[in-house]
Parts: sequence; C-alpha cells; structure tokens
Amino acid sequence: MPYVNIKITREGATAEQKAELIQGVTDLLKNVLNKNPATTVVTIDEVSTDNWGIGGESVTVRRARGD
Amino acid sequence: MPYVNIKITREGATAEQKAELIQGVTDLLKNVLNKNPATTVVTIDEVSTDNWGIGGESVTVRRARGD
Amino acid sequence: MPYVNIKITREGATAEQKAELIQGVTDLLKNVLNKNPATTVVTIDEVSTDNWGIGGESVTVRRARGD
Amino acid sequence: MPYVNIKITREGATAEQKAELIQGVTDLLKNVLNKNPATTVVTIDEVSTDNWGIGGESVTVRRARGD
Amino acid sequence: MPYVNIKITREGATAEQKAELIQGVTDLLKNVLNKNPATTVVTIDEVSTDNWGIGGESVTVRRARGD
Amino acid sequence: MPYVNIKITREGATAEQKAELIQGVTDLLKNVLNKNPATTVVTIDEVSTDNWGIGGESVTVRRARGD
Repeated sequence: MPYVNIKITREGATAEQKAELIQGVTDLLKNVLNKNPATTVVTIDEVSTDNWGIGGESVTVRRARGD
Repeated sequence: MPYVNIKITREGATAEQKAELIQGVTDLLKNVLNKNPATTVVTIDEVSTDNWGIGGESVTVRRARGD
Repeated sequence: MPYVNIKITREGATAEQKAELIQGVTDLLKNVLNKNPATTVVTIDEVSTDNWGIGGESVTVRRARGD
Repeated sequence: MPYVNIKITREGATAEQKAELIQGVTDLLKNVLNKNPATTVVTIDEVSTDNWGIGGESVTVRRARGD
Repeated sequence: MPYVNIKITREGATAEQKAELIQGVTDLLKNVLNKNPATTVVTIDEVSTDNWGIGGESVTVRRARGD
Repeated sequence: MPYVNIKITREGATAEQKAELIQGVTDLLKNVLNKNPATTVVTIDEVSTDNWGIGGESVTVRRARGD
C-alpha cells in the first residue's frame, strides 16, 4: 500500500525507462519492507526545466551553461 | 484552510467532473471538520498512464491487457 | 487507483472524523469518476499550526489573535 | 538540502518570473536557516484553472465571474 | 537531481530498512536514467494507520480485522 | 491562491524561523506574481534525518560523518 512519487526533469525519459522505475521501486518495497505490489502505487512527475531549480537557478539556465 | 491534492490518471475526466470533485471535497471538509470553504484549496493532478504504476506495471500496460 | 492527500492543521481531528474523510473521498471518486475503492489510497497529513501559514502568518499567531 | 514545491495556477508565469521564484526561495532558505543553495531543490507546478478549486469552485468558474 | 517521496504506514520500519530504501531508489535512478546520486533527494513519510485509507477504510480498522 | 510546501530536515528550526519562511515565501509570491497573500497557503514539513536521503545515504549517516 505504499505511495511513491518520483519527480524528474522532463528530458526525454522513455515509456520503457519509466516502466523500469515503476517495477524497480515496487520490487524494492517488496524486498525491503515486504509491501504488497498489488497495492503499491507509483507516480512519476516530469517537470519542465524552467520549473526546476537547484543552486538558485533553473535547470534550463544550467543546461545552457553545460551543467 | 485545508489543502487537498487529488491524483488521477489522465483518462478523460471532464471539467464538470473535476468541478464535482472540488465541490464534493470542500463540502466533506466543511461537514466533517467544519473547515471554511473560502480557504479550502483543492488541486487535481492528471497523470499520464505511462507515469502511473500499480502492481509493478504502468497503467498503459495494464489497460492494453484489459485491466 | 486514485491517490488523495488531505493536509489539515493538527487541531484535534478524531480517528472517527478521519475515517469519515477517508470514506467520503473514496465514495466521491467512485460516484464521480467510477474509481475502484479497493485501490483508492487516501492519506491525511496533520500539520503543526507553527508549520502552516496563510496571509503570511503562521496559524499559531492567527489563532492567538482569535482568527 | 531543502525541497520546496510551489503550486500556482497556469496563468502565464514567464520563465523569468519562475527563475525569480527559484532564486528567491533559495536565498530565503540560505538567509533564514543557512541551507546550502547547491542542494536546495525547487519545483514549480503550474495547474490548469479547471484543476484548481477554492471555495468549492474551480478557478475557471471564478475567473469567468471576474474573481 | 530527482526528488523521490515514499509514503508508507508507520508500522515499524527500522533506520536500516529506510537506509536501504534510500540507497535502492538512488541506485535505480542512476542505473535507469543516469541521474547523479549526489543530488538525488529521497524523503520517507511514515503515516499513522489512522491517517491512511484504502477501500474507504483506515488501515487501523483493516489491521484490526486481520487485513 | 498559491500553495507552497517546504520540506526540511528536522534539525531545530524555531517557530520564529518558520514564521520567517512563511512570511518570506508569501512576500515573494506577492512581489513576483502579484499573488494574494490572504489565500497563499504555506506548509512546512520537518523530516527526521533517518527519513531524508541524499547521495544514497540518510542525513543521519552523513551528519555522523561530519557532512
């Protein structure tokens, strides 16, 4: 019954990669805490790089500078 | 002054249905906890079925299988 | 399969009232969007009044002033 | 290492304004709690006015009425 | 730079198990999306069973019934 | 009407500092986006250092090592 929310920048994650994240997190919760996969909910938010900041700057600005 | 976040898969909820959810949750908090509707904030996130997992699979995969 | 998060100030909501919120939100999603109650997850966060702000002030300060 | 999530209605915030919010919140956490900007993460969610409710109504309805 | 929030019921997860979840999620994001562990933030919320609902009931009620 | 959630580690932030964060964020949203302070909601989550991870480790472990 866990709920996991994964926030990443919107930079091209494929459906296959997102499926891998869902499977991986569900397995992790099963293995570590014996949580039931059938009621483990995972959501992935993909956030525009204008809308994600670190170090006081947007990721858009950091990417333009090569970070 | 409550804040309620509703996450659902993006599968065609209409503006009217979302308005019904907003009204229903606000009424519920008024009736149960006497919270002031004027400062009750509700947000609805509609999440792509690729980005929603349950049972270790994405909803896209489950829908394709008829679940 | 919806996920609903309800944030309220920690001001004495009883277990019965919280059960009413859980039941009410689950019924609402069933009635409006035909969502399956068995996989509708609801969590309630009760937040200290020092940690909740509105109008630029904490709720603790506002309560002390009779708001 | 703080994580800050800002939710606003999607009503035309520019990249520059969002950068200002990111910088402003990061500075605030540095000044008040001496948090390290390099690991301060800020995300901004812009929510459709159909999906944001206050007072039991969606913002779309309130805007149409001039609120 | 991902941000992951894991919500579980407060039912005795140990510091070691929580460390395993943190390590596991960070590794998963590194392996699947090549995300930098140094800026991958993970938070775990442990929620009272009175405050977690599924199927319209609180987990406290379900546990009392042996679910 | 914005909603801002600030997550920090539970490491002794005082009521005054949290009030400063609430005031600062509310002012920032007023100045940058002309948002109405009266309906700007801010919540602060203080998270145990066992429950906060960065770089694949809990903050408890990192603090013990002097990070």
